[in-house]
Amino acid sequence: MSKPVCAIIGIGPGNGLSFAKKFSLEGYSVALCSRNLERLEEYADRIDNAYAFEYDVTDVSAADTVFSQIRKNLGPVNTLIYNAGAGDFSTFDDSTLKSFQRAWEVNAGGLFTSVKAVLADIRSCKGNIVVIGATASLRGGINTVPFASAKSAQRSLTQSLSKSLGPEGVHVSYVIVDGMINLESTRRNMPGKPDEYFMSPDDIADSVYFLTEQKESAWTFELDLRPFGEKWS
Amino acid sequence: MSKPVCAIIGIGPGNGLSFAKKFSLEGYSVALCSRNLERLEEYADRIDNAYAFEYDVTDVSAADTVFSQIRKNLGPVNTLIYNAGAGDFSTFDDSTLKSFQRAWEVNAGGLFTSVKAVLADIRSCKGNIVVIGATASLRGGINTVPFASAKSAQRSLTQSLSKSLGPEGVHVSYVIVDGMINLESTRRNMPGKPDEYFMSPDDIADSVYFLTEQKESAWTFELDLRPFGEKWS
Amino acid sequence: MSKPVCAIIGIGPGNGLSFAKKFSLEGYSVALCSRNLERLEEYADRIDNAYAFEYDVTDVSAADTVFSQIRKNLGPVNTLIYNAGAGDFSTFDDSTLKSFQRAWEVNAGGLFTSVKAVLADIRSCKGNIVVIGATASLRGGINTVPFASAKSAQRSLTQSLSKSLGPEGVHVSYVIVDGMINLESTRRNMPGKPDEYFMSPDDIADSVYFLTEQKESAWTFELDLRPFGEKWS
Amino acid sequence: MSKPVCAIIGIGPGNGLSFAKKFSLEGYSVALCSRNLERLEEYADRIDNAYAFEYDVTDVSAADTVFSQIRKNLGPVNTLIYNAGAGDFSTFDDSTLKSFQRAWEVNAGGLFTSVKAVLADIRSCKGNIVVIGATASLRGGINTVPFASAKSAQRSLTQSLSKSLGPEGVHVSYVIVDGMINLESTRRNMPGKPDEYFMSPDDIADSVYFLTEQKESAWTFELDLRPFGEKWS
Repeated sequence: MSKPVCAIIGIGPGNGLSFAKKFSLEGYSVALCSRNLERLEEYADRIDNAYAFEYDVTDVSAADTVFSQIRKNLGPVNTLIYNAGAGDFSTFDDSTLKSFQRAWEVNAGGLFTSVKAVLADIRSCKGNIVVIGATASLRGGINTVPFASAKSAQRSLTQSLSKSLGPEGVHVSYVIVDGMINLESTRRNMPGKPDEYFMSPDDIADSVYFLTEQKESAWTFELDLRPFGEKWS
Repeated sequence: MSKPVCAIIGIGPGNGLSFAKKFSLEGYSVALCSRNLERLEEYADRIDNAYAFEYDVTDVSAADTVFSQIRKNLGPVNTLIYNAGAGDFSTFDDSTLKSFQRAWEVNAGGLFTSVKAVLADIRSCKGNIVVIGATASLRGGINTVPFASAKSAQRSLTQSLSKSLGPEGVHVSYVIVDGMINLESTRRNMPGKPDEYFMSPDDIADSVYFLTEQKESAWTFELDLRPFGEKWS
Repeated sequence: MSKPVCAIIGIGPGNGLSFAKKFSLEGYSVALCSRNLERLEEYADRIDNAYAFEYDVTDVSAADTVFSQIRKNLGPVNTLIYNAGAGDFSTFDDSTLKSFQRAWEVNAGGLFTSVKAVLADIRSCKGNIVVIGATASLRGGINTVPFASAKSAQRSLTQSLSKSLGPEGVHVSYVIVDGMINLESTRRNMPGKPDEYFMSPDDIADSVYFLTEQKESAWTFELDLRPFGEKWS
Repeated sequence: MSKPVCAIIGIGPGNGLSFAKKFSLEGYSVALCSRNLERLEEYADRIDNAYAFEYDVTDVSAADTVFSQIRKNLGPVNTLIYNAGAGDFSTFDDSTLKSFQRAWEVNAGGLFTSVKAVLADIRSCKGNIVVIGATASLRGGINTVPFASAKSAQRSLTQSLSKSLGPEGVHVSYVIVDGMINLESTRRNMPGKPDEYFMSPDDIADSVYFLTEQKESAWTFELDLRPFGEKWS
């Protein structure tokens, strides 16, 4: 197995799938990692050199196992894309400690655990870690209590990783996705919104891939992505 | 009991003690809340109208009990000062998921639980919540992995609370403490540092109290505090 | 003249007037400095220990003269409040280089010139500089091109001053005013807005004064102020 | 003239030259614009499809002329790269109003004037504006008074442009260069610094070019670039 290995944590029909297609196209073996094995296997059938690995990032004991399997089957991981980001968008009154804690476990705890399990591989390859964040990573809003707090915790951890791993030759970066992804389900829920309001996951994948290709004399830690029609602050 | 009630979560010989003295002096009944009941009782003996309440913010079931006790003994809480902030200052390699999670539980989870338990009181008084943060709330560093990530999660939650509770007349603010507190123990560990490098907890308490006195037409969400001799970025 | 001297640059019926009343009340001699001498004299008549000094901050040659007059008449300046902030709120298309430059001259150039002229006084008193900013200091918007860019330049300069003068014992701070001031003229222009949308300049003045009273072990560089009813991001 | 046109304002042996080579290689006609015509002509001789245009960004009357010449000779400008950034790195005490103002004129005033003169072209092409910033764009330091203030003003303006022009299909972005450029002169002045401390301008050019290639559903406003060995905060 001489292809470099990209492990993508968190795979749905949007960004995760597009990341997989992009890295496959660029010559990687791609490990698709998420809870829904059936869906992963369907994606793996459609994408060259993509393989399904069941992984629940909140199951602390699972991390070493899944990365061992990936290493054994595909080789050491060169690039980790952390795309797990399920989030509860609720007000404080509507949030529970359980939902607040679960958002943290998926976004921050799971990143911590996953990096602990795969970092030796990435260090040996002088590879990449790309974490997919959101505008909520930057500030708490009224309706984003669990999600925003968890994303802030995730961004802080990613920043620490970037500062400590950079000098070792490992590039760690953070992508602020500031917009709605163009998915059938999203469009159905927001029928009045025009095309320019939505982000194509393939276009996001291009920037994620670009980050992993930057030369080490000029590395980006953070970039934002938004659709051109977005009103932003 | 006609005095307003200030509950301070997290009481040590530095900020917590100074907050207690300041609010006592300004006419509050003060509920001293932390894990070390013996120490709290010693402080309560020395401060007028201060009372000890054992409270471990990571014990989820304890929050309702402690605030019921405070309400019963002192009246409804008008002002909550969340000063629990024990943190692990470690690199990623030296951190464990346990220390990473515990830092979150103390700084973010405990704030969530405490506010859930006391918010009805504060809403009825149109009172105050002041959360004590740190420079690490703003960014992750190499040596602050558990602490910084937890403080970012805390700051995001506090910002959400401020935005949602402000229009109800509840003032929520966040204090970025950017410096070392002038304590015997700190000075012993840093014998070469001059006086101007350290912050007096009484001076911090003045700003915390001021935040609770601001008129509602001009409320602060966030302020930073640092000693005049500090080099900062 | 043994009273400490507070010079306020930029005096209108809102913040400037309230700052003057507050510092007068707290025992300062107050130098009222702006272009409109007639209005200043009217204010000076109504406020104890307040004196009018004509000063156009964009007239570079005027700075030394006005601060010499203040020094001669009232004594060395202890506290400078830079409140000059006229701004053009225009889109890029509607802005001209002239309006873009003028906004910079009032907000940033005038601050530079004024501090150059008065710093020796403030250094000798270990005094205070408070600069009045706005949300636009933090980011450029579609409709705030000249104003926001000028305010960003002003904030950066104030931050530099704070970092360099702090260790000398001069406290430099920046106030982010995030809201509309409650003035007859403003209310007339926005008849549909409720009271809670507006900021009382007297309440802003309390925070400005508080900044000048902070003890040097715990100085604030920046704080935000907004009315409790404000929706903010 | 069927090649798209890239105008680069501010050309030296570092970033400017690398941007020119990159856009030439990618099929652009490149307009090299700066004060030093002799140097520009030497560069133009070495780069395919590159042409020299004398332009002093602080000469307000020059902007319309130079962009007319470019339009006439090469066609309408599709992509503007604003790289003019000479800056005075001085303390407040060592700065003069003249140096403070000049830094603003080069970084902010010149950007304003240049965009005014070329925007009709860029709008008609739905093209790109990339502005080259620095860490100093984000905060004022003790030793960066004129430069940092000017860069903050520049960043604010660029943000305003991005928000207003995005919905028209014009992509405006800002690059935070956080490091020293690897030039003979720089290396000579910092003989003790290792290679990993320096940024290759060709690597910076790759990211600048990438920004202009992003699809409109996922545009970046701001990204940072730094060498992997950099300690950053």
